[in-house]
Amino acid sequence: MIDAIEIPVTRVKESKLKTLALENLPFGKYFTDHMLEAEYADGEWKSVEIKPYQPLELDPSLAALHYGQAIFEGIKAYKDAEGNAFVFRPYDNFRRFNKSAERMNMPTVPEDIFIEGMRQLIELDSNWIPSIKEHSLYIRPFMFSTDTMLGVRPSETYKFLIILSPTGPYFATPMKIAVEEQYTRAAAGGVGFSKNAGNYGGSMLAATVAKQKGYDQVLWTDAVEHKWLQEVGMMNVFFVIDNKVITPSLEEGTILAGVTRDSVIKVLKELGYTVEERKINIDELTEAYKKGTFQEAFGTGTAATIALIKELKYKDLVMQFDVDNVELAPRVKQHLTDIRDGKIADKYEWLFKI
Amino acid sequence: MIDAIEIPVTRVKESKLKTLALENLPFGKYFTDHMLEAEYADGEWKSVEIKPYQPLELDPSLAALHYGQAIFEGIKAYKDAEGNAFVFRPYDNFRRFNKSAERMNMPTVPEDIFIEGMRQLIELDSNWIPSIKEHSLYIRPFMFSTDTMLGVRPSETYKFLIILSPTGPYFATPMKIAVEEQYTRAAAGGVGFSKNAGNYGGSMLAATVAKQKGYDQVLWTDAVEHKWLQEVGMMNVFFVIDNKVITPSLEEGTILAGVTRDSVIKVLKELGYTVEERKINIDELTEAYKKGTFQEAFGTGTAATIALIKELKYKDLVMQFDVDNVELAPRVKQHLTDIRDGKIADKYEWLFKI
Repeated sequence: MIDAIEIPVTRVKESKLKTLALENLPFGKYFTDHMLEAEYADGEWKSVEIKPYQPLELDPSLAALHYGQAIFEGIKAYKDAEGNAFVFRPYDNFRRFNKSAERMNMPTVPEDIFIEGMRQLIELDSNWIPSIKEHSLYIRPFMFSTDTMLGVRPSETYKFLIILSPTGPYFATPMKIAVEEQYTRAAAGGVGFSKNAGNYGGSMLAATVAKQKGYDQVLWTDAVEHKWLQEVGMMNVFFVIDNKVITPSLEEGTILAGVTRDSVIKVLKELGYTVEERKINIDELTEAYKKGTFQEAFGTGTAATIALIKELKYKDLVMQFDVDNVELAPRVKQHLTDIRDGKIADKYEWLFKI
Repeated sequence: MIDAIEIPVTRVKESKLKTLALENLPFGKYFTDHMLEAEYADGEWKSVEIKPYQPLELDPSLAALHYGQAIFEGIKAYKDAEGNAFVFRPYDNFRRFNKSAERMNMPTVPEDIFIEGMRQLIELDSNWIPSIKEHSLYIRPFMFSTDTMLGVRPSETYKFLIILSPTGPYFATPMKIAVEEQYTRAAAGGVGFSKNAGNYGGSMLAATVAKQKGYDQVLWTDAVEHKWLQEVGMMNVFFVIDNKVITPSLEEGTILAGVTRDSVIKVLKELGYTVEERKINIDELTEAYKKGTFQEAFGTGTAATIALIKELKYKDLVMQFDVDNVELAPRVKQHLTDIRDGKIADKYEWLFKI
């Protein structure tokens, strides 16, 4: 635990909480009273402050809007039955944020701004953490370039902010997924592993086309053969074949190193399952499906934790899963919930107390 | 030519031109008195206006800063010897802008906002077009998503702006280029052909690493073998081998369909050169160099028009070019300048009069 840094705080005169009920709020639409804002210039972080949530005054030539140096993280805070607030694995997001920063040629953010700043901000707005089951406070740290000059080059100035959004339960209805055979999200040597804004903007068209055909999302594949599996929409993906769990490996740098992905792998191993992190080809799935050994498929991410896949389409083959009777995904999800709720010991120290 | 639409104009009280000399200004650092701003919502462009250049008030949850739906164009306006102002090939940029928009799942911008809005804006700020040789007014149309909601999905609201920046001559010193063998800019099925912000943010690290090794930029290659050539930094690339001109073709969608690239191809053909648009492998270049038939290499783009390559490095082979004695690139550049200056007939109707 680092020592608390002095972060100047300007409080709101009146909390917006008086006019807002925290129950069943949609994801990412409402924001708490305060935000954290830090400024980078001349090779160092010049300032950090907590102040009322408010619009930013940005020049039309803002580098981020033109040249896309922009990264973010998504983290969740909860309250337990006793009203204690904690954050799930923030250090993992902190480390990943700085990996994204390095790939996008941006400065890294020090721990005392990211972690301690986040802690102080959440503490100040702790009344905004819903005490209702499956509700949470979504934490959005993000950084973007702020030079006001149109030359293409890494910006010399940046803003880092943390904003907080109270959120109701995320109803992860089982998904219908189409294997993507035209569009590409990421290739080796690219920015696929980085949580940068462009990855999301670049992936929207494929999702829109899939939706028009009746699918919820796409399963991304490699750029060359469109056969090697990457991730499903904005989530990591897991397949259960013959009681073994397989998930695409990270070494190619084309998929996000999900924190939930890592939690799921650790819990699965603890529960005695075999987990293989490796390259996986769509042909392996279709063959297993035809043999009757393809048992489950699911996505993992911060928003939904685990989302079941009920249908996976590749060319003419529609693979269907009896999501009411899958065994593994609900078991892992319950285990993660139990750790969060303090019913199972937090042996990996995933819970960060506010 | 479309009819003029009614665009409301709010003029500045006093022009900034009184405090600024237009000579030798750096690229993209100063902006004119006015800007155009249009708003999209509910499936249509709601408003368009010309008003004083000013900061935008944007919510911290602005979609573009998180999910990267952000595209732009770069165009140049000039004044000829008689003081007539014109723009070079704006319709080509207009069409490409809307192709970028479609790929990034953004609304297209109608011609009366993009072209006629640009014309009216430039007319209003026409005093800002430098009358000095090789100076120009750089035009930056751009669009970004403006929803204030953290759910990942195509934004429902957007802003389209045009800002103008008077610019001195771009001194295109001959470049030292390293063939990129680690990082990837674009793969088939991706967004490489789209002029979106993320492409630029994602490419900065490779350029930074190259600079640390003494190179100005990288020559991008494919994601699989790192042998098939794409573009050089932010420019299209041309190679002259055995008096034939070769430039990477567009069909894979990994490179920008440069307007200058297209102008150069048309002029080269007019001058009697053979131009091949096709896939080209680095091995073809190294073999030609060893045989002594690799004569020239150069990049093309709006900022520099043509930038010579004096050195091209691939593994241990350093290919050097006697840039003071190349023939083709300077000839094409002069031809393009002569069209702009009215010395050669504008047979392709590239000049758009303000």
